[in-house]
Amino acid sequence: KQIVLLPGDGIGTEVIKSAKKVLEAIAEEYHHTFTFTVHAIGGSAIDSNGDPLPPSTVEACKKADAILLGAVGGPKWDQNPSHLRPEKGLLGIRKALDLYANLRPVKAFEKLLHASPLKADRVQGSDLLIVRELTGGLYFGTPSERRDDGKSVVDTLAYTRTEIERIVDKAFQCAQGRKKHLTSVDKANVLESSKLWREVVEQKKADYPEVEVEHLLVDAAAMKLITNPTHFDVIVTENMFGDIISDEASVLTGSLGMLPSASLREDGVGLYEPVHGSAPDIAGQGVANPIGMILSAAMMLRHSFSLNEEAEAIENAVQSVLDNGYHTPDLRMHNGQKAGTKEMTDLIVDHIK
Amino acid sequence: KQIVLLPGDGIGTEVIKSAKKVLEAIAEEYHHTFTFTVHAIGGSAIDSNGDPLPPSTVEACKKADAILLGAVGGPKWDQNPSHLRPEKGLLGIRKALDLYANLRPVKAFEKLLHASPLKADRVQGSDLLIVRELTGGLYFGTPSERRDDGKSVVDTLAYTRTEIERIVDKAFQCAQGRKKHLTSVDKANVLESSKLWREVVEQKKADYPEVEVEHLLVDAAAMKLITNPTHFDVIVTENMFGDIISDEASVLTGSLGMLPSASLREDGVGLYEPVHGSAPDIAGQGVANPIGMILSAAMMLRHSFSLNEEAEAIENAVQSVLDNGYHTPDLRMHNGQKAGTKEMTDLIVDHIK
Ligand SMILES: CC(C)[C@H](C(=O)O)[C@@H](O)C(=O)O
Ligand SMILES: CC(C)[C@H](C(=O)O)[C@@H](O)C(=O)O
Repeated sequence: KQIVLLPGDGIGTEVIKSAKKVLEAIAEEYHHTFTFTVHAIGGSAIDSNGDPLPPSTVEACKKADAILLGAVGGPKWDQNPSHLRPEKGLLGIRKALDLYANLRPVKAFEKLLHASPLKADRVQGSDLLIVRELTGGLYFGTPSERRDDGKSVVDTLAYTRTEIERIVDKAFQCAQGRKKHLTSVDKANVLESSKLWREVVEQKKADYPEVEVEHLLVDAAAMKLITNPTHFDVIVTENMFGDIISDEASVLTGSLGMLPSASLREDGVGLYEPVHGSAPDIAGQGVANPIGMILSAAMMLRHSFSLNEEAEAIENAVQSVLDNGYHTPDLRMHNGQKAGTKEMTDLIVDHIK
Repeated sequence: KQIVLLPGDGIGTEVIKSAKKVLEAIAEEYHHTFTFTVHAIGGSAIDSNGDPLPPSTVEACKKADAILLGAVGGPKWDQNPSHLRPEKGLLGIRKALDLYANLRPVKAFEKLLHASPLKADRVQGSDLLIVRELTGGLYFGTPSERRDDGKSVVDTLAYTRTEIERIVDKAFQCAQGRKKHLTSVDKANVLESSKLWREVVEQKKADYPEVEVEHLLVDAAAMKLITNPTHFDVIVTENMFGDIISDEASVLTGSLGMLPSASLREDGVGLYEPVHGSAPDIAGQGVANPIGMILSAAMMLRHSFSLNEEAEAIENAVQSVLDNGYHTPDLRMHNGQKAGTKEMTDLIVDHIK
């Protein structure tokens, strides 16, 4: 299996090494062959190639079976004109590879509930998956431009029925493999696109009779995620609502640094990255939490390579290391053993072997 | 002063009576003359006039000095075609009166922190104001339609520079009267409209040199509202982001039933309504919390009539009644005295007199 590594910026370059180490351990234990090539993206690609997404990176990604991305961005490039900003690399690779389905699981770890902003009894037991449409809507609709000499401006929220159908199908499939509950989030009392969205969800219901479906307006969803996070199993929504709702959900359990994500194409090729950013404030210190990246590698094994046992081996190793009281500084555990990026990675690797 | 009352649906018809009673007490104590007329909106207007916003209601509102709205909506009208849905009345009156500035204050009440989903120490001291643009963006942009025989759909996020300028000005003015900190929320790494938004905020800065300004992406704002709500003073954002962010913020303090809102026109005429909805589950039982509506009436005195002392008299009365341990069932206080809508209203009126 050909895996492209895109370290990116800041702690991205540190945690990607952790993922590689863990995957090498898996390869050894389970007799697989993974080959890795490293390519540039984001700020570091602007520095090296004058382009946040060099053509050579796109080429390599198109040939790969899966891609691991660290993180992009940093203050160094914050004042750049918009075509020379790190996040253009991320948006570009999503679109170039048609990575339409963004999966963002959020799960409460018992040991970390004290770090949650929510009262422990509210968040305990939360285990949800946000399925966000990633290549349509306001992010890529045209026209998106200034008009009348800069006196007005317009962006476009556009979807085809086919685009909605494929993401809704994906979400139903995810729900079938979980607790069989699907919440579709839209703004059907205002947007035409949401009305079509709701119609598609209603039509698809028939194909997944075991899945219970509800519709929730995005404003109500933003409230309910906080007041009652355990209500949810799978949430499906369009690109911009998904951006907001999934980041909102990511802070509920107090374990942002542990959260993985997958961005998938229809054939199963995918890009996997931790939810956290490049964290310029702690970059280079060897203290970054590698778990979000390592669990992203586990998602890769499951979703792109169908290696479920191997994925679980990683997930169980992470759980065991946490249960044994080890943690990176960001997790602010009360007791337990502080560990840096390398130490944490080695502990996880030890558990796998 | 001519005040139009729009009771609307569900508990809207109950709490509007409370606001009227409190305003009558204020009129008596401070020697003002308020005249009230009642008009139909929402579901009950669909029932009585076949229209969620009858022309007679619009007429009356246009002549009024201020408008109080209870709430609209209910299961009875949920299956109606979209032009016959209660919320069309709300959207219609906002647009008809050009109520471009939606002010949504959120304040933690010490006595209610136990009811917050957040840990008390996170939310304690929160006191923020969301200034949401209310008559532009995705809500009213055209085209907003299906295309290609229903095979695709489009909505439009449109703003003029003037529309952005007036809401940004409003927010700066609000910040000046508060803690002089303004957070502008946008998605400038993706949307052209957000880039113009950010540009306008940067330009307006010079007119309000005492106000400290920061820009925050909407996804980061959705996170920070939960992890660090006390960070914020005034938040300004466009219509759809404001819808999501303000509802998210409304559940942080555990006192949704207490929250007021104002929707203002440039000349100070405004529509005032509680943040909570029509609550069909408890309608007609006399247990609705009238405080959100009563505090909306206080906002009306301040923003439309410049009666600051009178507004404070209401706010202090509410605070005192809570401090004395009285509460409606929704507040779930540990000890204290349960009170219904009428009792709570009378207690507040007693404090004013
Ligand atoms: C960097 C940015 C363009 C991106 C997005 O909005 O999609 C990010 O917030 C994300 O969610 O991956
Ligand atoms: C009822 C609905 C159209 C409305 C909105 O989205 O503006 C409501 O959610 C609000 O925030 O007042």
